[in-house]
Amino acid sequence: MPRVSFMPSGRTVEVDEGTDLLDAARRAGEPLAAPCGGNGTCGGCLVRVLSGSVRSDSSDAPDPEDAEEGLIRACRSYLADSDCVVEVPESSRAFEGKGADLSSVENIAPIQPDGGLVLSVECLVPPPGEDGASDLERLEKALGDSGVEMDFPLASVREIAGALRKNGGRLNVAFTGAFGKNSAVRIAAGRETRAGLGLAVDLGTTTVAAALVDTASGRTLSIKSAYNDQISMGLDVIGRINYASRSGGLEELRLAALSTINRLAHAASLEAGLDANAITAAVISGNTVMTHLILGLDPEYIRLAPYTPTLLDVPVYRAGEIGLEIAPAAPVLFSPCVGSYVGGDITAGILTSGLASDGEEISLFIDVGTNGELVIGNRDFFVTCACSAGPAFEGGGIDRGMRAAPGAISSVKIDAATGGPSITVIGGGEPRGICGSGMIDLLAELFLSGRLDPAGRLDLSRGMERMGRAGRRAFYELAEGPDGRPIRVSEIDIENIMRAKAAIYSATALMLDNIGISYNDISRFYIAGGFGKTLNIENAVAIGLLPDVPRERFNYIGNASLQGSYRLLISERQRSIVRSLARRMTYIDPGSDPRYMDHYTAALFLPHTDASLFPSVGRRA
Amino acid sequence: MPRVSFMPSGRTVEVDEGTDLLDAARRAGEPLAAPCGGNGTCGGCLVRVLSGSVRSDSSDAPDPEDAEEGLIRACRSYLADSDCVVEVPESSRAFEGKGADLSSVENIAPIQPDGGLVLSVECLVPPPGEDGASDLERLEKALGDSGVEMDFPLASVREIAGALRKNGGRLNVAFTGAFGKNSAVRIAAGRETRAGLGLAVDLGTTTVAAALVDTASGRTLSIKSAYNDQISMGLDVIGRINYASRSGGLEELRLAALSTINRLAHAASLEAGLDANAITAAVISGNTVMTHLILGLDPEYIRLAPYTPTLLDVPVYRAGEIGLEIAPAAPVLFSPCVGSYVGGDITAGILTSGLASDGEEISLFIDVGTNGELVIGNRDFFVTCACSAGPAFEGGGIDRGMRAAPGAISSVKIDAATGGPSITVIGGGEPRGICGSGMIDLLAELFLSGRLDPAGRLDLSRGMERMGRAGRRAFYELAEGPDGRPIRVSEIDIENIMRAKAAIYSATALMLDNIGISYNDISRFYIAGGFGKTLNIENAVAIGLLPDVPRERFNYIGNASLQGSYRLLISERQRSIVRSLARRMTYIDPGSDPRYMDHYTAALFLPHTDASLFPSVGRRA
Repeated sequence: MPRVSFMPSGRTVEVDEGTDLLDAARRAGEPLAAPCGGNGTCGGCLVRVLSGSVRSDSSDAPDPEDAEEGLIRACRSYLADSDCVVEVPESSRAFEGKGADLSSVENIAPIQPDGGLVLSVECLVPPPGEDGASDLERLEKALGDSGVEMDFPLASVREIAGALRKNGGRLNVAFTGAFGKNSAVRIAAGRETRAGLGLAVDLGTTTVAAALVDTASGRTLSIKSAYNDQISMGLDVIGRINYASRSGGLEELRLAALSTINRLAHAASLEAGLDANAITAAVISGNTVMTHLILGLDPEYIRLAPYTPTLLDVPVYRAGEIGLEIAPAAPVLFSPCVGSYVGGDITAGILTSGLASDGEEISLFIDVGTNGELVIGNRDFFVTCACSAGPAFEGGGIDRGMRAAPGAISSVKIDAATGGPSITVIGGGEPRGICGSGMIDLLAELFLSGRLDPAGRLDLSRGMERMGRAGRRAFYELAEGPDGRPIRVSEIDIENIMRAKAAIYSATALMLDNIGISYNDISRFYIAGGFGKTLNIENAVAIGLLPDVPRERFNYIGNASLQGSYRLLISERQRSIVRSLARRMTYIDPGSDPRYMDHYTAALFLPHTDASLFPSVGRRA
Repeated sequence: MPRVSFMPSGRTVEVDEGTDLLDAARRAGEPLAAPCGGNGTCGGCLVRVLSGSVRSDSSDAPDPEDAEEGLIRACRSYLADSDCVVEVPESSRAFEGKGADLSSVENIAPIQPDGGLVLSVECLVPPPGEDGASDLERLEKALGDSGVEMDFPLASVREIAGALRKNGGRLNVAFTGAFGKNSAVRIAAGRETRAGLGLAVDLGTTTVAAALVDTASGRTLSIKSAYNDQISMGLDVIGRINYASRSGGLEELRLAALSTINRLAHAASLEAGLDANAITAAVISGNTVMTHLILGLDPEYIRLAPYTPTLLDVPVYRAGEIGLEIAPAAPVLFSPCVGSYVGGDITAGILTSGLASDGEEISLFIDVGTNGELVIGNRDFFVTCACSAGPAFEGGGIDRGMRAAPGAISSVKIDAATGGPSITVIGGGEPRGICGSGMIDLLAELFLSGRLDPAGRLDLSRGMERMGRAGRRAFYELAEGPDGRPIRVSEIDIENIMRAKAAIYSATALMLDNIGISYNDISRFYIAGGFGKTLNIENAVAIGLLPDVPRERFNYIGNASLQGSYRLLISERQRSIVRSLARRMTYIDPGSDPRYMDHYTAALFLPHTDASLFPSVGRRA
């Protein structure tokens, strides 16, 4: 078997002849990027063969420029029978681990609980008697006397003997009706246990957030977020679908999503001084592809016409069946998906926005994530659209990008005269990187002060020591990083933000075209996304992410998917609303409408090719 | 942390100060015996400290004889802060691995199937249409049109997308009603799948057997058996309960039982040219402690008065919930237990014996395993009793003992004149060891020919080159082993068989006392056990294992627990019988009746202290 060594890490692996270099990197544990999931379409996994030989299809040749530098696509280069040494350039390193701490700046607006997924009952089980009745038989009888009958999954049966003998037979039995018949979730000695704990999860393509909730009071005990461990297996849902089709890829993706959530659940429990095993219910909201991946369902047919998912409405399963490390018998509810591109994150988001209860006025819901998700509607109709914005607003594809977490530059002001920045860092302290709201501010400030042109090019003639050129691209230096490496934003980073904002803006425009209304017909704009509380609406308008309408119409509602999960966890009314929502939605597919690309191209400027759409945005210089 | 090296294997491990040497051995992977499960009661884990020092409780001192030889109990010796070298003598090596092949000489008497646990339905699912219906929605509709509604556990949902696209939407859906509502078990492309496969399991304390069954025809496709992987964690149920109370012990026992069954399931499937994942139902029969252990239920309270199990009637769980490596959604049925010492192996055995259908005549069912299990009854009543016989009849505690598997000496004749043996080896070929039926023959032949006295001592004065002394104990040499080591049976081995047969006989005698009848009132004796077909009834009477009654009353029925599992797998009638059985049983506890020890002591002779009980047994010399 040929042996492959990756440089500069030195990681080495033996693999079968014919294995592609991306696969070899994966087996070696080398963090090689695969933005498109190894499909040969993005050129993100470029490597250089230093010794040995590989076979590459000539039809899969990279850009002439890359070829000149000896770079080839790892996913399209196959090992021959000789050993190889392969260089992984910095630019092909996978986007992962950056800011991989579990901190979060999210907030959840509390609501009044009205019916958790799990209830509990106290009972007193008599000690064993002459009749030789088993623990389970005596427990069943005691519950029957209280008028509660239930099934006992194996995980709950394992707890009976110990719990019965701790507090004189007094038990607290958590149970759920989510499986049709009542079913035990957790059995603990009476008075030992606290009121039901639940976990609300936003399973995003790039970022995952989880909140630990006291379901009885509706109080949030802890919120944690982290990058999705799947990031190295594709940057967006199409990349992930590609990766899932590789051998073992689906299982790898499933385990990566699970381990991300499990880590958050453990961290949130630890912070609250509790055991994750005491969590007796969970709600997960994610787009349709993410929902398939965490369940281990092949997403292949979501990508292929006629775009058919295995399921949309996920039955309630137990945590143990899914692999979630909370009480194994806990019911896990998924926010319902509506179509291949309208997932549970949208239905959860609508729930949070109040779109469904706003009456006749028309509102727009915009969720800025890796998938930009949009809904226009009122109490009578919902039209929805999803577009791929990429992970830029969450720090992905930005050299020094990171999530809105402690250490992130979350807002930026630039002195018009000197061009020097003043920055705000989440949590105070030294900056480690820049998050989405910081990037929006930076682009707006550079643009408004005349240092960035509408096409996204920095004007080095307005010479300041903070600006310069690295390779072919100009940059602006924001701060010194704690590692001594300056935090710079390059024209590549700027381009990524511009693409993302163009995708969101053009999808919105397409929806308006379809419905036959204009921005002015929309009374409220609900803006959701993981920016934290730091999104500067004025700057979001200045770069053309949001339309130029009266500012009082905008409401920033935070992570709407996470908050939707929270609502579903503690409210039967919200669960009933979300079920009925799903039936009233119409989907507009941007991929099948040529007007989308026209809108997109026009939106690839600051704020827009048609400046008359943004009358209030005026450059100061 | 102190480091411990075990000799002569050289296995080394670092553990915390204060760890006992048995625990250290377990962590090092050193196969140190723990017959009592590490409770300090049996002296089976004796070791010698060659260097370093350990702390031993003086109250836990071994026999003076052992102490003289420098031997201490590993389970009661605790590491200090210095490294140690510990010798594990041959006699303390764990009984495991010997004859650990998966072959079997079992047979199952076929019955006519009348209602498997799993049914199947064919359906044609239309391709995805304009309505965007998911695969699951279209499948549910197609099944609904066939009049079958069901739930879909996650494991079955994972199969839908692939199966749907293999054969034009034609599916074969296996489902079960065992969970109340119909529930999918396995979804395969139509005509790709074969009729339902089931797994029947006898989960014995020492030996585990599994049969792969075509549930449609009732045909047995393959039978495999092996030693239970739990053997090194205690030789009988009390040893196992002790071991379960050690830290991590219960989980270790659970996984050992599972891995044993899983290995058998894979081997049986392989032999039949099938995939274990195609097995859609399983039935397991085991005693109450084994049933608790495989489910991960703490058996502690079965040992402590008032001897309360967590459960007796096990709900039907899915294979995935239990950890069985067959179709994850497959229902797993346990033969019902009746009390702490009357397990599912007995109810399954009664089912096999026909005791329940014999009418008014009184029958006796004897299952000779590590737990000797006895039932006396007719269609109106059942009295039952269990005693610990130890693993001797299954080869445990016998130096060259092994299961009734190829290579085992299964029958022995001894020439009265020369004292030379003629042996039969299962499968022909060279002998590797001796199984239970061979030991019974050997004892009987040695006894009847005057070479073994009633107390179990070999008479070396009847000098033959085959007999001799090794250490303090005399032996009889049966054959040359394939490893060059002669196959000898020592007085220790003989003593173990005598203890086992005395336990069985005395438990039977106690039951007769209690009911107030004699052996002559019993019309039929059903003898079960893993002897294979080779049990010589005449010899079993000669050593006093079975009573001296007319031989036509004896029926050897093989592994009754395995056959009971088989019957439950394919017959609704048998499932209904076993449920009603459980309600009619009375248990006699030998531990709480002083007469048991009197009977036992009297039975520790060949054939018995009271020779008048065995009038037909006459020594030839």
